[in-house]
Amino acid sequence: MKKLSEQEIESQLAKLDGWDYANGAIETSFEFKDFKETFSVMTRIAFECEAQGHHPDWSNVYNSLHIRLNTHDVGGLTEKDFKLAHSIEAIIESE
Amino acid sequence: MKKLSEQEIESQLAKLDGWDYANGAIETSFEFKDFKETFSVMTRIAFECEAQGHHPDWSNVYNSLHIRLNTHDVGGLTEKDFKLAHSIEAIIESE
Repeated sequence: MKKLSEQEIESQLAKLDGWDYANGAIETSFEFKDFKETFSVMTRIAFECEAQGHHPDWSNVYNSLHIRLNTHDVGGLTEKDFKLAHSIEAIIESE
Repeated sequence: MKKLSEQEIESQLAKLDGWDYANGAIETSFEFKDFKETFSVMTRIAFECEAQGHHPDWSNVYNSLHIRLNTHDVGGLTEKDFKLAHSIEAIIESE
């Protein structure tokens, strides 16, 4: 899996909604109604991560969820990160 | 729910295994086999949190889980935190 260039990252980032690029990773935050709704979304995301063989650095406090994606193996971003980011967006939009 | 004194916290902490007290919260970290096992444990913990009406600040990266407990409403630790910590230990020990 190839590490993306800065130009490729900018181009990929433009196709996402509300993700920031910082410290070699893309990240975003979401808020939901309550803990139950937040953890339900996390569960759907967890199954998708497992299917894609790619996993986030993420944290949760009650109804808020912070997600950070990068590819540890290459020390930066790859297409895997953007694929998963789009899947996460699709899951959250379908809620 | 009463905020615990430093002395009460020390006494409660001694009954737990592997938790640290720092910045007004108790925290611990665990490592599991893989993401699937980690998220399964998180799911069991999530149900217990919901049942107790008390929720952690927690983060996960692949097979590692970091958990931080405090009671936001009182700006410190209460019995709720230690009750949940014991439940989390029981869940993890039963794995």
